[in-house]
Amino acid sequence: MKKDLLSIDDLSRDEIYLILDTTEAMREIGQRPIKKVPTLRGKTIVNLFYEPSTRTRTSFEIAEKRLSADTLNIAVATSSVQKGETLADTALNIEAMAPDMIVMRHASSGAGHLLSRICRSRIINAGDGMHEHPTQALLDAFTIREHKQRIEGLKVTIVGDLLHSRVLRSNVKLLTKLGAEVWVSGPPTLVPPGIERFGVRVSARVDEAVAGADVIMMLRIQQERMHGAFIPSLREYFHTFGMTRARVALAKPDVIIMHPGPMNRGVEIASDVADGPYSVILEQVANGVSVRMAVLYLLAGGVDVD
Amino acid sequence: MKKDLLSIDDLSRDEIYLILDTTEAMREIGQRPIKKVPTLRGKTIVNLFYEPSTRTRTSFEIAEKRLSADTLNIAVATSSVQKGETLADTALNIEAMAPDMIVMRHASSGAGHLLSRICRSRIINAGDGMHEHPTQALLDAFTIREHKQRIEGLKVTIVGDLLHSRVLRSNVKLLTKLGAEVWVSGPPTLVPPGIERFGVRVSARVDEAVAGADVIMMLRIQQERMHGAFIPSLREYFHTFGMTRARVALAKPDVIIMHPGPMNRGVEIASDVADGPYSVILEQVANGVSVRMAVLYLLAGGVDVD
Amino acid sequence: MKKDLLSIDDLSRDEIYLILDTTEAMREIGQRPIKKVPTLRGKTIVNLFYEPSTRTRTSFEIAEKRLSADTLNIAVATSSVQKGETLADTALNIEAMAPDMIVMRHASSGAGHLLSRICRSRIINAGDGMHEHPTQALLDAFTIREHKQRIEGLKVTIVGDLLHSRVLRSNVKLLTKLGAEVWVSGPPTLVPPGIERFGVRVSARVDEAVAGADVIMMLRIQQERMHGAFIPSLREYFHTFGMTRARVALAKPDVIIMHPGPMNRGVEIASDVADGPYSVILEQVANGVSVRMAVLYLLAGGVDVD
Repeated sequence: MKKDLLSIDDLSRDEIYLILDTTEAMREIGQRPIKKVPTLRGKTIVNLFYEPSTRTRTSFEIAEKRLSADTLNIAVATSSVQKGETLADTALNIEAMAPDMIVMRHASSGAGHLLSRICRSRIINAGDGMHEHPTQALLDAFTIREHKQRIEGLKVTIVGDLLHSRVLRSNVKLLTKLGAEVWVSGPPTLVPPGIERFGVRVSARVDEAVAGADVIMMLRIQQERMHGAFIPSLREYFHTFGMTRARVALAKPDVIIMHPGPMNRGVEIASDVADGPYSVILEQVANGVSVRMAVLYLLAGGVDVD
Repeated sequence: MKKDLLSIDDLSRDEIYLILDTTEAMREIGQRPIKKVPTLRGKTIVNLFYEPSTRTRTSFEIAEKRLSADTLNIAVATSSVQKGETLADTALNIEAMAPDMIVMRHASSGAGHLLSRICRSRIINAGDGMHEHPTQALLDAFTIREHKQRIEGLKVTIVGDLLHSRVLRSNVKLLTKLGAEVWVSGPPTLVPPGIERFGVRVSARVDEAVAGADVIMMLRIQQERMHGAFIPSLREYFHTFGMTRARVALAKPDVIIMHPGPMNRGVEIASDVADGPYSVILEQVANGVSVRMAVLYLLAGGVDVD
Repeated sequence: MKKDLLSIDDLSRDEIYLILDTTEAMREIGQRPIKKVPTLRGKTIVNLFYEPSTRTRTSFEIAEKRLSADTLNIAVATSSVQKGETLADTALNIEAMAPDMIVMRHASSGAGHLLSRICRSRIINAGDGMHEHPTQALLDAFTIREHKQRIEGLKVTIVGDLLHSRVLRSNVKLLTKLGAEVWVSGPPTLVPPGIERFGVRVSARVDEAVAGADVIMMLRIQQERMHGAFIPSLREYFHTFGMTRARVALAKPDVIIMHPGPMNRGVEIASDVADGPYSVILEQVANGVSVRMAVLYLLAGGVDVD
């Protein structure tokens, strides 16, 4: 493993499988009455969040505590931004306090790489702008493998805002690396030009993209895209791209439905699909804790787990 | 004990006494040089606060740490509300990460019951809208019993905003269940119609309500009620309902004065009463930690305390 | 040691040296693979911050966790201020929950003394208004001694906003107590009248103040002073008082450059000086954790460190 996890590009196929296999062991710890091992005792992990994200921060923090690390949350909000310190200076200061790892969420693409160049601490990218969110792709892959026993050869269809999604970017990299056939579909205003060169099939017709799929992964439509030029209206969006029971019926009979959350029910996904028998959305959340434990453990050098 | 503590209705008389007795043991832990027992080691407790409450959150967090639980604070503020996820979806997501308990404060009455229906985790209601705040009533009962050696047969007078107070609701339920004679008094605009059916005596004249009382419990006048139709003016309120030394003199000679905090000095209570010899207000705060330790311990199944 | 650390005035010369010597031992702990000792296990430390300060709070929290204390962060923001409770009532409430220590940052000078009069818990002042920030001065002294092997007889020049700086105040007290020759320089609008009686030399000409200095300590120009009557313009300020390579060249050849952070690059300090070979700014940050461990340890009674 490299020093940091900034991007799926940092991981070889073998390393991805190592993380997924380690995740199984970590999940077992989470099922014990005492869900805690002393693996990272005495290690300090800073969760440095420049964007609020209850769900990702909570998932990392639970993972860190199950491994007995000392955790520190730093939420950089307006007040500190007013003080006008650059990300580089903030990073150098945190680094000077000698944490073992920094988990960072930032609104700018590439913020993780900046941190990585500056810090000896191990950096985990917990989402940087429209760039990547590698642990999300890893937990998605773990969830898929749980249900399909493989990833190679599966048809995985990703639907929604393809332009602004770091979840898409990390998933496309990981799934194509492991040999899945990835289809994407979304409104023309939200399809990045040249997306085909990432090895995906693009279709403006979601029904075509979904036909025969093993996995359907819906992307969140973010509030700030909802109003304005990108989408004519929420009703229109749901009509054209929303995941409904009728669309799910076009996929394989054992299709699984995924969503990175938080969901806009009735916008990108119908409530009866989100809560229905094909949905594995809450399993993704549960697996998120285990996959983050695995990443923390492996980056720390893979010391013995009790 | 039921799975959750949402309301005083969840507790039988015996269970209330069990909690009060357990609180004594927990208080003893808080008096040791090392105020910590391994009882809840490896248990994860999420403090999910939709309303800011430094005092209640701090009290729970100290209680959790004294029992060696891993604690996670989630403060849901504007930013996440903007993301528009429902309480149910948030709860399902937290639940998927398998915490052992969730302590929730929410502005909506019944939010705890919603969580309870969705989650396998044990839920403790730390205040839901105008509905209930059961651990507050338990710590009040513990404080009363400390001073009076009993609750049955005592005259307890509660004065203030009877309409919007979850503290009132939980206290009336608990105190009447244990056989106290509960009197309430407040401005007509702040008395809920039909309050008598909860087994309390109502008087618009605070002097009558206070006469011969063993316990006087003042309720906080909340900022948002201070301006507008509920109260003519703060000065007028203090004159008519504020707890002054003259009013205290109408009660029993060994009366105790209680307040759930934070106090508005000079509005619902005179400073010399708040800080005077009959006041047990800071004892309430101290007992809050012990009572919460007891509730956490008993809900966790009453594993052995060292 | 006194019960609390509110001001450098609380410390004798011997106690300052004891803290600096203890800091050496604490730094060694921070260099171990497992940077944690059980010294303060079962002790509860409340970090009560009335002003946001990522850097100071993080430094204290890491120090507390390395000593195995249970830490609680209370950030008092607008919401709670709206509830209108006084600092005294908040302090009494926290005190009632029996923490062992309270680390407080507050915008009002003397807030620490108020807390100290009310609380049995040990109080550490983490910055109170324009008054003092004693652990900053201690970490500065430790950093100076590391590089110069002594403090007595050194020429230390402090440049910037002398009027509003608690860092200045604590440093002047400590450095003069240990026998350094302290020079200060800043714009006339930002020099407090009568500052000479603290035993410092004042010069309006920064070049004179810096000439032959062993240590140059730059103070932060705070945003709120940047606009308005105090400083004509940022460019003018940098020209007249900013620390440039040319000015550094006037000092001793082995001068060290210090800054308490966060820096305004290009305002009070040139980037090539901040990042240059004489800068010990990041060492100050690193030493901050060790010095705070030492203070926490000594205030707790100096129980054995493993």
